[in-house]
Amino acid sequence: MKNYDGLLITFEGGDGSGKSTHSELLKNYLSNKGISFFATREPGGTDFSEAVRALSKDMRFADKSNISELLLFEAARADIVEKRILPALKEGKVVIMDRFYDSTTAYQSFGRGLDRKMVEELNLFAAQGLVPDLTFYMRIAPNTAFERKGGVEKDDVMETAGDIFHRNVMRGFDTIVRENRNRFVVIDSTKPVAEVFAKISSIVESKLNEKSRERQC
Amino acid sequence: MKNYDGLLITFEGGDGSGKSTHSELLKNYLSNKGISFFATREPGGTDFSEAVRALSKDMRFADKSNISELLLFEAARADIVEKRILPALKEGKVVIMDRFYDSTTAYQSFGRGLDRKMVEELNLFAAQGLVPDLTFYMRIAPNTAFERKGGVEKDDVMETAGDIFHRNVMRGFDTIVRENRNRFVVIDSTKPVAEVFAKISSIVESKLNEKSRERQC
Repeated sequence: MKNYDGLLITFEGGDGSGKSTHSELLKNYLSNKGISFFATREPGGTDFSEAVRALSKDMRFADKSNISELLLFEAARADIVEKRILPALKEGKVVIMDRFYDSTTAYQSFGRGLDRKMVEELNLFAAQGLVPDLTFYMRIAPNTAFERKGGVEKDDVMETAGDIFHRNVMRGFDTIVRENRNRFVVIDSTKPVAEVFAKISSIVESKLNEKSRERQC
Repeated sequence: MKNYDGLLITFEGGDGSGKSTHSELLKNYLSNKGISFFATREPGGTDFSEAVRALSKDMRFADKSNISELLLFEAARADIVEKRILPALKEGKVVIMDRFYDSTTAYQSFGRGLDRKMVEELNLFAAQGLVPDLTFYMRIAPNTAFERKGGVEKDDVMETAGDIFHRNVMRGFDTIVRENRNRFVVIDSTKPVAEVFAKISSIVESKLNEKSRERQC
């Protein structure tokens, strides 16, 4: 499957976990080193994908089914993968993505309850089998001991549907990380930005060196 | 899976094969008999599905990938299945569809070359596992001996891309019919409309009787 020279780096995590900050810092870092890259977000990134994004957010259709929503995301993904991401990787560029299909698995399957096998098959179908070389999971809730115990503890405060959804998504990310250790790096995003980015840049650096050694072989 | 009392009847075939004519005739026939039905077309049939249909036909996005096009169709399907088709079937109605997912398999997989297994999995995913009770395949090219021989015969005239696409779609329908004999009825749509409809109505009639006997058990 790996018929390209580039490097696909994705950032995953909840909202406000520093994904955008660190993908911006990584863009600057690569620019300063003269390494060419392509950075994008999902859904979006092509005219068609932006139109699909707009449709998915259109409040007139807020009652569409979860399956429809998933399929829209995948339609947008298929377009940007074919037109931007695969070509950039084939040109040897670093591709930086603020969210990719791990978010789809976490939100649509663990969060909304869609069949995980189907969601993951669709992810790979829309992405033409593409797997990130490196995924930074930006964690801002380091204490997941409660989740690990697998229990539901009684609390004074009633949990809202939003709380439960969020907890399921976070548990989803934990599961995805655990099952894909080969490409995931968990980042404690509660630490200072400079410290966090030092870790990210050093990992990217060694991945780039590894890649360049591969190319020489 | 069959947790409904209704009957799902689909019409399939190429353009101009009489699908619309005969679904109209069937609607009149059922009306006259006081049988309640819901009739629709795909893609479309809900506001969201019509918006997706418009997006899929928008010439600004004519260069979208085949995968994106498929996923849009499936997103539209998921919505109409959930909001209209399943509820109508649960109410015991006859649902008449001018095209359903067999067209997706024929056009997107046999025609455009997308992986058949993936297309069919997606069809069932979007349709929540729904399988038509009866599918009329309106055939207007009865002589497919050429296809059956599996050969490509030299001809004086160069085949266009459109010819090849069309032939592959028709071959696709033949394959789908062959593998789903339990629900398919092949109709020779080159015959006079009255004769054709007499056949269709008698088949629908016996299916309705069969259904009503099942319900009595």
